[in-house]
Amino acid sequence: MNIVEKSINTIRKLGLNMVESANSGHTGIVLGASPIIYSIYHEAKVNPRQPDWFNRDRVVLSSGHGSAMLYAILHLMGYDITTDDMRDFRTLGSITPGHPEIDITPGVDCTTGALGQGFANAVGIAMAESHLSAVYNKTKLPLVDHYTFVQCGDGDLMEGVCYESASMAGKNKLNKLIALFDSNNISLDGETNLTTNEDIKARFIATGWNVLETDNHADNIITCIRSAKSKQNTKPTLIICHTIIGENSKFANTNASHGNPFKEGEYAEVVKNLGLNTEPYQVDIDVYKHFNQIANYGKEAYADWQEIYKTYKKKYKLEYKQLFEPDLEKVADSLDSLKFDTDMSTRDTGHIVLNETGKYLSNLFGGCADLSKSTLAFFEKEGFFSPENKKSRNIAFGLREHAMRAICNGICLHGGVRSFASTFLIFSDYMRYALRMSALMDMPVLYVFTHDSIAVGQDGATHEPIEQLESLRLIPNLEVFRPADGYETVGAMQWYLKNHKPMVLALSRQKLPFLTTTKSKCTARGGYIVSKEQSADLNAIIIASGSEVELAIRAQKLLQKEGFSVRVVSMPNRDLFLLQSKSYKEKIIPSYFPSKIAIETGVTNGWESMVGRFGEVIGINTFGESGTQSELFDLFGISVANINNKVKAMIKRNKTQNIEI
Amino acid sequence: MNIVEKSINTIRKLGLNMVESANSGHTGIVLGASPIIYSIYHEAKVNPRQPDWFNRDRVVLSSGHGSAMLYAILHLMGYDITTDDMRDFRTLGSITPGHPEIDITPGVDCTTGALGQGFANAVGIAMAESHLSAVYNKTKLPLVDHYTFVQCGDGDLMEGVCYESASMAGKNKLNKLIALFDSNNISLDGETNLTTNEDIKARFIATGWNVLETDNHADNIITCIRSAKSKQNTKPTLIICHTIIGENSKFANTNASHGNPFKEGEYAEVVKNLGLNTEPYQVDIDVYKHFNQIANYGKEAYADWQEIYKTYKKKYKLEYKQLFEPDLEKVADSLDSLKFDTDMSTRDTGHIVLNETGKYLSNLFGGCADLSKSTLAFFEKEGFFSPENKKSRNIAFGLREHAMRAICNGICLHGGVRSFASTFLIFSDYMRYALRMSALMDMPVLYVFTHDSIAVGQDGATHEPIEQLESLRLIPNLEVFRPADGYETVGAMQWYLKNHKPMVLALSRQKLPFLTTTKSKCTARGGYIVSKEQSADLNAIIIASGSEVELAIRAQKLLQKEGFSVRVVSMPNRDLFLLQSKSYKEKIIPSYFPSKIAIETGVTNGWESMVGRFGEVIGINTFGESGTQSELFDLFGISVANINNKVKAMIKRNKTQNIEI
Repeated sequence: MNIVEKSINTIRKLGLNMVESANSGHTGIVLGASPIIYSIYHEAKVNPRQPDWFNRDRVVLSSGHGSAMLYAILHLMGYDITTDDMRDFRTLGSITPGHPEIDITPGVDCTTGALGQGFANAVGIAMAESHLSAVYNKTKLPLVDHYTFVQCGDGDLMEGVCYESASMAGKNKLNKLIALFDSNNISLDGETNLTTNEDIKARFIATGWNVLETDNHADNIITCIRSAKSKQNTKPTLIICHTIIGENSKFANTNASHGNPFKEGEYAEVVKNLGLNTEPYQVDIDVYKHFNQIANYGKEAYADWQEIYKTYKKKYKLEYKQLFEPDLEKVADSLDSLKFDTDMSTRDTGHIVLNETGKYLSNLFGGCADLSKSTLAFFEKEGFFSPENKKSRNIAFGLREHAMRAICNGICLHGGVRSFASTFLIFSDYMRYALRMSALMDMPVLYVFTHDSIAVGQDGATHEPIEQLESLRLIPNLEVFRPADGYETVGAMQWYLKNHKPMVLALSRQKLPFLTTTKSKCTARGGYIVSKEQSADLNAIIIASGSEVELAIRAQKLLQKEGFSVRVVSMPNRDLFLLQSKSYKEKIIPSYFPSKIAIETGVTNGWESMVGRFGEVIGINTFGESGTQSELFDLFGISVANINNKVKAMIKRNKTQNIEI
Repeated sequence: MNIVEKSINTIRKLGLNMVESANSGHTGIVLGASPIIYSIYHEAKVNPRQPDWFNRDRVVLSSGHGSAMLYAILHLMGYDITTDDMRDFRTLGSITPGHPEIDITPGVDCTTGALGQGFANAVGIAMAESHLSAVYNKTKLPLVDHYTFVQCGDGDLMEGVCYESASMAGKNKLNKLIALFDSNNISLDGETNLTTNEDIKARFIATGWNVLETDNHADNIITCIRSAKSKQNTKPTLIICHTIIGENSKFANTNASHGNPFKEGEYAEVVKNLGLNTEPYQVDIDVYKHFNQIANYGKEAYADWQEIYKTYKKKYKLEYKQLFEPDLEKVADSLDSLKFDTDMSTRDTGHIVLNETGKYLSNLFGGCADLSKSTLAFFEKEGFFSPENKKSRNIAFGLREHAMRAICNGICLHGGVRSFASTFLIFSDYMRYALRMSALMDMPVLYVFTHDSIAVGQDGATHEPIEQLESLRLIPNLEVFRPADGYETVGAMQWYLKNHKPMVLALSRQKLPFLTTTKSKCTARGGYIVSKEQSADLNAIIIASGSEVELAIRAQKLLQKEGFSVRVVSMPNRDLFLLQSKSYKEKIIPSYFPSKIAIETGVTNGWESMVGRFGEVIGINTFGESGTQSELFDLFGISVANINNKVKAMIKRNKTQNIEI
């Protein structure tokens, strides 16, 4: 057994040890794919002592269930993962969770687990590299210049999100993206020929990829990686590695080996087969030495890059600041200069705010799923990102919503740049998991979702969001803003710039009346009094978001004429409002006060607890219809007249019932 | 201009007329793709007088924005769509909505609009045909024997759901599926080379398809369709038709022509170019005659089939009944015989209930996204559906969650069969739009989502559902059940069988203690008292769903020992509960009663309005963690001890505050 074989077998052994410690995990991939992960780290420019080094090669394990294998090699390479950490695999609070997670484990470049996502994230990382290198590199100062490796399996390649993002990578000639396909022809339910008869090689070639094929020997895989890096190659590369799942165990080549089929004692048997000492977590010194040698390549490259970095910092102060130290607070404040004084849709105000932001914040790189002319989420006069125009900040994602979002996560993962993704609100359903991953990974992706209600009108039920807004609000760590006009749009964007979190902007397609009353500064509190009651003897509170705020204000005026004192609260972000101090909340919407009514063109669910059991919600709990906007607003009661009637009925009801709370 | 050209131009003209009437719609596809839709109906076995004929060829317009073109040809073919109906295009209450919708327009076989879905639905329809024909056809009695046509565009083919379902079709050799690709190289944002450089032909060949290529002449397209139908062809066929978007108008071949670029008067100009009378909606008699002739093929086929149908009905009574008149009430009642008396997970009880249902209900055809060994949603001893085993009711979907759901919609759309789809609850996010379409189209797909909480444990945050359950509850017309044990699982399945609606079953991975108290009959009320209070002086009500019901009952027992009188309500379906009579609801959970606590391992949002402002919700509003189930339950307070403490604190608080409601 030469040192390479021994090193790979040590990865396998440590992986098995972890699964045995946790009595949970995946042994099949650990035994089958360790030669691949070994080859990647053999060729990757990484520095275990500086896991967050900006110009490191990125490594994404899209088959996240192979986490034990990843932790094992990270440990061997010298990342700060101890034997005890490995022993704590999959226990609460450990740095070795069931699937790899960024910010928990040094050396993990991407949180993975749900198949297909990691692959798409890697495409995003490579796209960020391509864009930033074009924008920032200077002669003899290649500040951004690295590869992105992704290891993926049969399951990944079956996922639509993987196909979509592979197509994006092919189109954009991301030749610094190298995907290593752990092809073992087994998935959970059995052999993959149960579910697919694709010619993967032909499919990827058809999608604009360079495809290489090899076995499971590290030497051969490394040769392929080097070939992928050759200057002649202008395409992303897929290296198909034919492996054996569960290799060296009695479950080899069967789907039984995917999870953890071993009984006590059987682990040691496999380790014996591998020709290694069966003492758990014991590693021979020559193996550590070997990995240390491998790591030297990256450490030296890191030292070289430090020189480039220092020179760059001195010579290109402006660019340096833009890339490494953008003053987001200042960018946010600069938006205060925007003035709005005419009726316009919030997709229009969104366009203005995005372009104004882009003037001060260079690194905002994203786009639309073939709807830029409709959602207006693009930077003017930049064209689209392409191999010929890598500096453009606009990405033409095509009809690939799911990949769009996962790619935007990848762009943010790269660092040095934020990302935005845009489509109609209804199509947020196409990419929900990737959006959730933005929130889970804390990636500050800006989601611009326009056509945010039944006001879409004539396109009908398939295009009309009903439950989407509320359903996005349910995702932890995701902020959903639905501004009523330009000033609230500014407020939302300022919040985004001052926080490091994904944000949804839900914007209207239809023109909205110009409101003199909304305030950008109040937007960050989530909800505020946008139009005060006339007299101290308050009769009702109307709460509205987005396009319904102006209806609420018009209803208020009518009600005032009829002698009612009504307050209107604009609530662009309900969750932020609920996070305010109790005294603020009670000032805006007293909890003891019975006659509260909320209006939003979507499901009523989330508003019910806010208005309480004596209150009322005007919303839509069925699917939409095809008709003009005014027909639909009448049909669903999204109207001044309906608010007016409902408010009066509510006041009367609460009076006769003698509510005292 | 020969009669074929004239007929195609008449489709174009009527389409333009509709868009002009509505001043909204899509002219580019009407002008470009009419030769394709003409060719499809020329070759399709359909009977306009019997639009729901069971053995008709199915036609799916995946590019649903081409609805005007579809309505035009349906009118010309003799479907019950009048000139007035066309004039009412896109108005509220018309039978000609913005995008095609089933149950609204005769002849529309699938609701389409969101790109990619229709294509995947068509794969499902073809799969149902393949399965049912194998199960039901008898010698000389081809009861089920038809083609499925789908017209799709560049945008469809970019979508991941389309790729996934194409791969399923190729693998399963669905050679009666014919897809016609309207290839015009334009999408909304511009030329498609902005977003893709795929070799579509090579990609589909790599995915197991037969690919033909032609221009936009009906004769040639028809030749291709006939070639696709040849006995030698064992694969699904993609016919690439090179067309010109907006043909015959000044916007031809540009993305400007996608929507509706015409001004008043310009419509007539195009109609003049087409060589037709510019009087709107006027159709020459020879055109009607031509379409009438085309329709004759289907009418004759319909008459022939009637003979087959009559003979079949007489000769194969059992099969006839199974296919056309399954007694779902009886199937539901037969589940009453199931007994559960040991601890088991609800994924296990789900497996038992599914298999028992399958004994009596033959036509339940579905499967899992490569997780059948984990979700257990499969019929025993049937293997998997494949070209060699078409009778199997289990589909191996592979890692293709989005396509799975869209295909299941297609299976239900076919008729004569229901469908089921299964994966982990967390991955419901991968296919949300298709699930919504089940609800919008009223397709009775059974969704079996297991691993329904953080009890997944060691796989960590990427695999732990938090907001999914609540978020599914927001979808209109979708019923979400989370049973506490076997009897509630039976109750949920009985509800599913007695209703024609999509249903989600959220099931546990972990074993749950056997409960003697739950009841299948009560499940249909959504919520019921599963464990009564000890004395009339009620102190608190605990509301729980699924795996938390047993925790609630254990907490109740403890609280009783401490002298508190506590009621436990099991709520497997909150929405159904809310639909019960006021008197029933008040009996179970009095609205005036302050001390209500709800517990569920997910976001608290939906429960807040149910417990009111003096109540309490135990839930999880952050992402999960990697650890054992018991570690996580302790961490998140999903425990008897926490319920106990929270209930006592709530009772005390509400007493001291002297709540009177």
